[in-house]
Amino acid sequence: MEIAAPYLMFLGDVPDALAAKTAHGIVDWRPDWCLGQLRLPGCKADLGIPDLTIPEAAERGAKTMVVGVVNAGGVLPEHWVPAIVAALDAGLDVATGLHVRLADTPAIRDAAKRNGRQLFDVRHTSQRFQTGKGTKRRGLRLLTVGTDCSSGKKYTVLALEREMRARGFDADFRATGQTGVFISGRGVAIDAVVADFISGAVEWLSPDAAETHWDLIEGQGSLFHPSFAGVSLGLLHGAQPDAFVVCHEPTRTHMRGVKHPLPAISDVIDLTLRCGRLTNPAIRPVGIAVNTKALGEAEAQAYLDGLADDYKLPAVDPVRFGVGEIVDRLAHEFPDAAPAPSPRRASA
Amino acid sequence: MEIAAPYLMFLGDVPDALAAKTAHGIVDWRPDWCLGQLRLPGCKADLGIPDLTIPEAAERGAKTMVVGVVNAGGVLPEHWVPAIVAALDAGLDVATGLHVRLADTPAIRDAAKRNGRQLFDVRHTSQRFQTGKGTKRRGLRLLTVGTDCSSGKKYTVLALEREMRARGFDADFRATGQTGVFISGRGVAIDAVVADFISGAVEWLSPDAAETHWDLIEGQGSLFHPSFAGVSLGLLHGAQPDAFVVCHEPTRTHMRGVKHPLPAISDVIDLTLRCGRLTNPAIRPVGIAVNTKALGEAEAQAYLDGLADDYKLPAVDPVRFGVGEIVDRLAHEFPDAAPAPSPRRASA
Repeated sequence: MEIAAPYLMFLGDVPDALAAKTAHGIVDWRPDWCLGQLRLPGCKADLGIPDLTIPEAAERGAKTMVVGVVNAGGVLPEHWVPAIVAALDAGLDVATGLHVRLADTPAIRDAAKRNGRQLFDVRHTSQRFQTGKGTKRRGLRLLTVGTDCSSGKKYTVLALEREMRARGFDADFRATGQTGVFISGRGVAIDAVVADFISGAVEWLSPDAAETHWDLIEGQGSLFHPSFAGVSLGLLHGAQPDAFVVCHEPTRTHMRGVKHPLPAISDVIDLTLRCGRLTNPAIRPVGIAVNTKALGEAEAQAYLDGLADDYKLPAVDPVRFGVGEIVDRLAHEFPDAAPAPSPRRASA
Repeated sequence: MEIAAPYLMFLGDVPDALAAKTAHGIVDWRPDWCLGQLRLPGCKADLGIPDLTIPEAAERGAKTMVVGVVNAGGVLPEHWVPAIVAALDAGLDVATGLHVRLADTPAIRDAAKRNGRQLFDVRHTSQRFQTGKGTKRRGLRLLTVGTDCSSGKKYTVLALEREMRARGFDADFRATGQTGVFISGRGVAIDAVVADFISGAVEWLSPDAAETHWDLIEGQGSLFHPSFAGVSLGLLHGAQPDAFVVCHEPTRTHMRGVKHPLPAISDVIDLTLRCGRLTNPAIRPVGIAVNTKALGEAEAQAYLDGLADDYKLPAVDPVRFGVGEIVDRLAHEFPDAAPAPSPRRASA
């Protein structure tokens, strides 16, 4: 799936900012790609970028209109259809993360065909993958893993990409979830792939690369989550990471959507090492990324210091304190892939 | 997916017995369900059951025509279509394990619609599942796991079902693969499910049951197979087995389709226990099932004796020596679910 930037962000008439969470994520990480937003009357979300009509967006070079919102039930409201058809008629592709497929609406399917434009349903994949081979590929890979779902795995790899690029590393974010695919313009919603092809899809996503190149692969779920651990294990095997970062939210009392308690960070490290060695015997942890939002600043720092002591790993909050210490560790552990002459600190 | 028996077995004009492997498996385990076979001119496979025309099969009460063959590429040969249409016109459903969907052939789709019959594509699933919950369900469950793919996991659970039923246990085979679904008349090809729903589909397959009921769940792949371990882990979590049997083929030098060596049986036991405890803290191994076909009889027995000594578990070849010792162990370890007054030995 390759979605062409720049984007016109379509917000429809969603009732709050939360419904536009995906769109906000795209603007946060790829502001240059987001030329403007298109809002229908009554829309309560605002991305803080220019309001553009479809002709204005087309004139400024927009390639894709991104429907970066969810609404109840994931369906496509009928009154959004005219704008989608107009975007196709103006020469844009259209991409969505809705549960329904764009092409299931005849007017949209016809408009895409008539204009020779592409429709992207990021939650679905019609792409054919091979089954995973497990063979070692060239280049370096980092995967974020978690004690749970929604523990900062996407944010952490994106923060690593930003910091590593600022320091001169050759590093690319590799998206495995819906929002990530819009941010990357490429990728696969790995939880939507047919089960037989989980690891194979990740092998496709992160192919052979230069020895000094880092693929920063967005993790999903947790090896300890009873709903999604299969996805997490196939992702681990396909990613064959040289390095992994454990993501954690310390105030959560049970895993999302189920009654199970969170595993200890040590359990996540142990099981990730044990299973990850199947496709990369040299796998190692390089850091812990914690969402400390629920803690005071001093408390957060003390908590991170404690983790760093216990695990002998950099422990950071990517939002609050940045991921610089993890990048320092990568530069130290993988010196051949660090920018010459020596790693510079781009941020604290 | 619920496929109605009895069956008419359609073999087309396949060039050898291997192409009818699925059909042979169905006849082996459900001879009573297989009323007869339908072969086209040139067919080189023979199930050893009566040749029937479609009207004859319908008259004898056949409910479903099973296309239990594969051909190169998994496509549906055009000259098989008339027989499939005739079966639908005679009031039978049609089920296949081909890669293509029956309904993609307009003549078949129309005939099914015209006659109000069902088409089953066992390799595909349009069924919607919930994500797994990981909550403990009532009843007992046994899962076969493996050091590799194709190591006897289906055969072993079917042999256990036969032996346990003969002894008076309340036990049901639960199919997770194509051939198994035909044998069971019910089930889900778990590797064809969307990744997010692996464990949820198994929870659907093996619901709450009586405390003394055994679900015998067909395993898939291996936690150590780099292509399919995600499927195996989701299956383990969804199955939440009380007991598991490790299946092994001792002469194999690497895992199927990849270059990786086979794991040790001890590694499979350890990792199955470690991961399986997430959804069933009481999980335990109850036996080892070995395909000893490549060994002489004395050598096979010595090998099994060695395993039994090393692991303190019954070690059997289900084909050569039966699974009686594993059922003895189940009766001993789970006495409340063993038939009263004491387990009888139905076979050696």
